[in-house]
Amino acid sequence: MDFQLILDEIHAELRPRLDQAGTGAQVARYIPALARVSPRQFGIALRTCDGTTAQAGDSAVPFSIQSISKVFSLTLAIRALDEALWTRIGREPSGSPFNSLVQLETERGIPRNPFINAGAIAVADRLVSLGDANAELLALLSRLCGEPIGIDAEVAQSEADTGFRNAALANFMKGFGTLDNEVTTVLDVYFRQCAIAMTCEQMACAAGYLCRDGAHPLAGTPVLSAAQTRRVNALMLTCGTYDAAGEFAFRIGLPCKSGVGGGIVAVVPDHLSLCVWSPALDATGNSYLGRQALELFVAKTGLSVF
Amino acid sequence: MDFQLILDEIHAELRPRLDQAGTGAQVARYIPALARVSPRQFGIALRTCDGTTAQAGDSAVPFSIQSISKVFSLTLAIRALDEALWTRIGREPSGSPFNSLVQLETERGIPRNPFINAGAIAVADRLVSLGDANAELLALLSRLCGEPIGIDAEVAQSEADTGFRNAALANFMKGFGTLDNEVTTVLDVYFRQCAIAMTCEQMACAAGYLCRDGAHPLAGTPVLSAAQTRRVNALMLTCGTYDAAGEFAFRIGLPCKSGVGGGIVAVVPDHLSLCVWSPALDATGNSYLGRQALELFVAKTGLSVF
Amino acid sequence: MDFQLILDEIHAELRPRLDQAGTGAQVARYIPALARVSPRQFGIALRTCDGTTAQAGDSAVPFSIQSISKVFSLTLAIRALDEALWTRIGREPSGSPFNSLVQLETERGIPRNPFINAGAIAVADRLVSLGDANAELLALLSRLCGEPIGIDAEVAQSEADTGFRNAALANFMKGFGTLDNEVTTVLDVYFRQCAIAMTCEQMACAAGYLCRDGAHPLAGTPVLSAAQTRRVNALMLTCGTYDAAGEFAFRIGLPCKSGVGGGIVAVVPDHLSLCVWSPALDATGNSYLGRQALELFVAKTGLSVF
Amino acid sequence: MDFQLILDEIHAELRPRLDQAGTGAQVARYIPALARVSPRQFGIALRTCDGTTAQAGDSAVPFSIQSISKVFSLTLAIRALDEALWTRIGREPSGSPFNSLVQLETERGIPRNPFINAGAIAVADRLVSLGDANAELLALLSRLCGEPIGIDAEVAQSEADTGFRNAALANFMKGFGTLDNEVTTVLDVYFRQCAIAMTCEQMACAAGYLCRDGAHPLAGTPVLSAAQTRRVNALMLTCGTYDAAGEFAFRIGLPCKSGVGGGIVAVVPDHLSLCVWSPALDATGNSYLGRQALELFVAKTGLSVF
Repeated sequence: MDFQLILDEIHAELRPRLDQAGTGAQVARYIPALARVSPRQFGIALRTCDGTTAQAGDSAVPFSIQSISKVFSLTLAIRALDEALWTRIGREPSGSPFNSLVQLETERGIPRNPFINAGAIAVADRLVSLGDANAELLALLSRLCGEPIGIDAEVAQSEADTGFRNAALANFMKGFGTLDNEVTTVLDVYFRQCAIAMTCEQMACAAGYLCRDGAHPLAGTPVLSAAQTRRVNALMLTCGTYDAAGEFAFRIGLPCKSGVGGGIVAVVPDHLSLCVWSPALDATGNSYLGRQALELFVAKTGLSVF
Repeated sequence: MDFQLILDEIHAELRPRLDQAGTGAQVARYIPALARVSPRQFGIALRTCDGTTAQAGDSAVPFSIQSISKVFSLTLAIRALDEALWTRIGREPSGSPFNSLVQLETERGIPRNPFINAGAIAVADRLVSLGDANAELLALLSRLCGEPIGIDAEVAQSEADTGFRNAALANFMKGFGTLDNEVTTVLDVYFRQCAIAMTCEQMACAAGYLCRDGAHPLAGTPVLSAAQTRRVNALMLTCGTYDAAGEFAFRIGLPCKSGVGGGIVAVVPDHLSLCVWSPALDATGNSYLGRQALELFVAKTGLSVF
Repeated sequence: MDFQLILDEIHAELRPRLDQAGTGAQVARYIPALARVSPRQFGIALRTCDGTTAQAGDSAVPFSIQSISKVFSLTLAIRALDEALWTRIGREPSGSPFNSLVQLETERGIPRNPFINAGAIAVADRLVSLGDANAELLALLSRLCGEPIGIDAEVAQSEADTGFRNAALANFMKGFGTLDNEVTTVLDVYFRQCAIAMTCEQMACAAGYLCRDGAHPLAGTPVLSAAQTRRVNALMLTCGTYDAAGEFAFRIGLPCKSGVGGGIVAVVPDHLSLCVWSPALDATGNSYLGRQALELFVAKTGLSVF
Repeated sequence: MDFQLILDEIHAELRPRLDQAGTGAQVARYIPALARVSPRQFGIALRTCDGTTAQAGDSAVPFSIQSISKVFSLTLAIRALDEALWTRIGREPSGSPFNSLVQLETERGIPRNPFINAGAIAVADRLVSLGDANAELLALLSRLCGEPIGIDAEVAQSEADTGFRNAALANFMKGFGTLDNEVTTVLDVYFRQCAIAMTCEQMACAAGYLCRDGAHPLAGTPVLSAAQTRRVNALMLTCGTYDAAGEFAFRIGLPCKSGVGGGIVAVVPDHLSLCVWSPALDATGNSYLGRQALELFVAKTGLSVF
């Protein structure tokens, strides 16, 4: 398949929709640093298992990866703890944000899965116990894409200044005894990981181990085992796109993880990893154009896990 | 791969566990006709895309397919209504049975997905509007496996006598105006579809269109379109095994649909469909040995969508 | 106090508000027989412990008492079962209709209190076990107000034709094993008790035992013991006006029970019982003018339990 | 009535139960400073509207008033803000702690009532905006009982060290924009008010305005208006004893407010205020012996609002 041609077609087809008003899509507004990002940006990039790359649009513009970071912090935690990670984190879809909170109560501080905020905070807590969590995450990402990756300090500060809901979740878990470290320490790590900045091209490369049975996209060395990799992909498919996970599975059929910065990373096992980015979000908190780009990609290539 | 050898190995490895007490697994007790089934049974059968079959154990013993019927009633409804089916049925995982009821309230009678009971009752309602729902379902199943398929009348009566929870769901939806037909008519169809009896071999064959892009396993004619088939598989993976859907995706990684009769049907897209059956259920309502059989199958074959 | 003068003043002050549009108040629409009632009606009547009566407006027009019947069916059940009644019915406020359903699930079919629909259906079930529930309820009411009381057959049929939500609750409880009798039998009793028709004057008299430590308003014989009577009043105050019980306690401070027919009965222990009726309901399902009438009554008389 | 005799009888009857094991009652364990309190203590004191006092047992031993402080912080807030207080605090029972959190979510940060923790934190926030909240509360209490009242610093520190659930609630509300001040400032005020220490005799006197239409128990000057006082009493009756408010209304029939320190204050409007204290709590978090003492008091005196 000529992936460059396909990405060019997708870009040509979707780029005009950046100009259309009335869709209701808009950039995340909960922190000033994100609210200032121009919605008129759209990038897409992919990297196949054998190293072919393709990209179109604003694929080299850094964006705030936000919740996409949860895939990589989970990867670090699985590497270090494997099955032991799952004693205080579940693996089931949460149904809705509403339920995730109820479930945190009824399930006594055990988050439903590592991709809801409570779960990612729990993962951050485990990483804090193991060492310098932010430094290790940046080191992992830098190795995976062969370029230095950093944190946008302004976004990190903005997250910390306004992250009351996350502070509520962390305190709630601390009250149940399911966080080991200080709430402020864990939140600091969590807010900083959300503020990591990467381009579509970097992200498509970094996620390469997820389509290669865990093998490093550049070095070929194991990042995760094949079984661990399949499980990360399974979690992305069932829990990776907020309350639209069922809809993504139904319409796109690929493991995906999205962030409120407008990025979505997707995996076609044994084929390729790709990343789309466009900052305006739909009502479910997923990138409005990114979702359409993935639907088009699947329609044009026939690639799907199903 | 020598699938017959693999199934024989699985059977040899698991059969002894039928004798072990202390697992907590037990047959469904909510209706007398199911409570009388001996837990000491275990069958497995598969059929590949090119027609190869393999089977082991009690693969020719008929069992009550229960919720597995939801895959086929959904197939009938998608054939007839396609996208229009989804106006009053969602496609998201429900989180838990607890939530499914809350969500039915907060989402005003729109069930979360077609595989929770409320969703399957809604599908049955649509089929009632289209004709003789039970007759068409039996005709579909009989064509798919090339043998006459029928309903266990005793189980059907038992379901009707004790199906108060389902009557509650149907009345609840009727109160919201999201059922078109009489509650008693719809429930009768629903209770009867749950009481269909099939063997593992029949079920492995009947589900064959799900691994063949929708093509009839014997005739090759289209049962569903390729896109429709992918969507049914996506729903099975995200919503097919009650509250253990995340766990099944994580450990097994295949679209599956289970029933409280102890059957589980699984699909390896482009490869094969298989069915396991063992009546004793674990705490999540899925077949205790069936789940282990699927984990072993995946471990031995390396087949997974991820 | 000159109660006739006070009721006349309340009537004079509120009657003009029947003509004012824009309040959002409207008659219950869920059954045709209630939706046809003219909203331009307002009646009020009271009866003191020593037998003085006062009335104003449409106090002699029969209306559908609906949920007010729950006070009297509860009275019959307490008389027959006393403490044993409470093994499968709670005594706590439910918080909201939303919660009442969740709680029915989490509390395994035990309704929160006898005044939410599930609780009143449970009371009806106990009364069915004891005899001809509707006949005994009509006999009690007829004795209490010294006039024959009957059921509006058209309203009863209308309730039965559209009572899907109540059918859901009854089936739900039956599924938990907390209803002893057939669902259809219990619902028939419940729908018929809701369709009882009475006037404000009759209701003010019938409720007289609640302000007289349980003594029959006309005969003086015990209807309930003093302790039982206090408990019915306590339940009315904490649970008698749907989701506005806290608001009624805060603003009015009297045990009250309302119905969607627009009636509200209120008790001033050791002083009087009164009934207001005006069919248009506010957003909480309580009579819009009835509530204002009670606030005025309390302001003018200084009567309150607090 | 000879109240001293009645309290002596209650003390004589209940004191032996302090020695009986097997009730399951135990002192609050969530903070070390409370967990160390001996459960073998029981005190009771009352003060009538005309100034008569009576007391028995450990009525002069100071205890941690905990949530009873919410009555007095509410009093300060009503005095300062009157109706404006209620724009961001509700007045309905919450049903259960479980629901209080769900409701905080569905009702967008508006607590159900001022006596659940979220509501009391919201009241504290309003008081912080008005001045030195803790100082004013201590001044109010000192004036009401004519003796200096202080905070147990060890308990306050213990609350702050372990108050993760309250920190979660405060951050949750801050995320909804319904707290005006800094989370840490508001929590500090809240934790300190919970750590106020008083004796039964002091508390019975301090609550005296609640049975005197708002008049200061010693000075006779207005603390609240009569209408405001009735409303505080109404809130105590419907929401003052955690999830047992319905049960307290049913069995005791008086406005009450309890704390996890084992104290309960109760009001008989127009008659008297009383306070019982015994540290061991029942499963609903209310004083085990305190509740029995109130039931006995009501049975012996016939006093009840119903």
